[in-house]
Amino acid sequence: MAKRRSAVAVRDDAGDSKSERTRARILDAAAHVLSVKGFAGTRLTDVAEHAELQAPAIYYYFPSRENLIEEVMLCGISEMRADLQAVLADLPPETGSMDKIMIAIETQLRHELELSDYTTASIRNSGQLPEHLRARQKREETAYGRIWQGLFADAVADGEVRGDLDPRIARMLVMGALNWAAEWWDSRRDSVDLIVQNAQALVRTGLTADTTRKK
Amino acid sequence: MAKRRSAVAVRDDAGDSKSERTRARILDAAAHVLSVKGFAGTRLTDVAEHAELQAPAIYYYFPSRENLIEEVMLCGISEMRADLQAVLADLPPETGSMDKIMIAIETQLRHELELSDYTTASIRNSGQLPEHLRARQKREETAYGRIWQGLFADAVADGEVRGDLDPRIARMLVMGALNWAAEWWDSRRDSVDLIVQNAQALVRTGLTADTTRKK
Repeated sequence: MAKRRSAVAVRDDAGDSKSERTRARILDAAAHVLSVKGFAGTRLTDVAEHAELQAPAIYYYFPSRENLIEEVMLCGISEMRADLQAVLADLPPETGSMDKIMIAIETQLRHELELSDYTTASIRNSGQLPEHLRARQKREETAYGRIWQGLFADAVADGEVRGDLDPRIARMLVMGALNWAAEWWDSRRDSVDLIVQNAQALVRTGLTADTTRKK
Repeated sequence: MAKRRSAVAVRDDAGDSKSERTRARILDAAAHVLSVKGFAGTRLTDVAEHAELQAPAIYYYFPSRENLIEEVMLCGISEMRADLQAVLADLPPETGSMDKIMIAIETQLRHELELSDYTTASIRNSGQLPEHLRARQKREETAYGRIWQGLFADAVADGEVRGDLDPRIARMLVMGALNWAAEWWDSRRDSVDLIVQNAQALVRTGLTADTTRKK
């Protein structure tokens, strides 16, 4: 239905070997099945069928069904964090703090929408996972959130955020708007560019103290 | 953990009879179990234990496990829609279109956060439901979304929304920010009032064409 990047295209370290490509194909298939059928309904036979493999072949790459699901859930969030860290590290030092928030919005939306099976799987199943699989996921989410926390703290320190907003609540509302986009975005209707552009416009104006001060 | 309104308090029509209170208690218990354990993990024995009942008593009120779960999922969305319709119908005719959006934000957040077990159950399990249970849920979501669509269309017609925003995308981003609040809101940390106030400030400024034109 939607044109989406696969785990192969996203991972620079995925290499080119057949085995690495097969592993990525299994992950993509599992992300798809998980996003549609949910944690309890995800069967390895369905994943295998989607990946055009025999089910036992999956065990060559993943020790268990749970391990495969955990990998899918982490894929979204941990690679998004790595992406964002890399993008921020590459920015010229004079980049303004509100511009950095705009870049973070774009990074999250591109990652999330282009890998939306993973994100959808992650969002829809976070409440379904058994406790022991949830811990790593939670840690990754916290680490990702901490980057955003830093971006907002800098913007507040630079006087770029209106004083009548609680920066933490404003940040959670913004991140919620971005997270939820995976639920409603339809690639046949809107380009990712258009979503990015609207989210940036809405958030920049929404956060900014006074439009006349904007650089 | 969190102080939350129960289905009893929310439903004016719940009446006072013991049977109606028991039914509401079962719904509250099911919402809680469903929000934590998910669709596949929700067992009637857990619901009964939480409601301090014997499991077979549930069948006196709900014909099946699926029917109970469907009721919980619909509770959030259909009552939210009824709430919003009633609130909007009671407004003085001179209420501005941006003010109506502010009122819709407050209505959704109060409903969602005070009934957050239902909302969380609804959000987290929408991808888990079997097809036949999903249809009614989808219809309710569409009907609720249509009210918001009208509010945004009016605001655009009144020149209250900046021209560089796509009204549909802006609306979905706003609704996403509100929906996601059930995921992170912690009643021990922030009052619902504070969340409402921040969401209104962020959205009003984010949507408005030019702050100097604001009435």
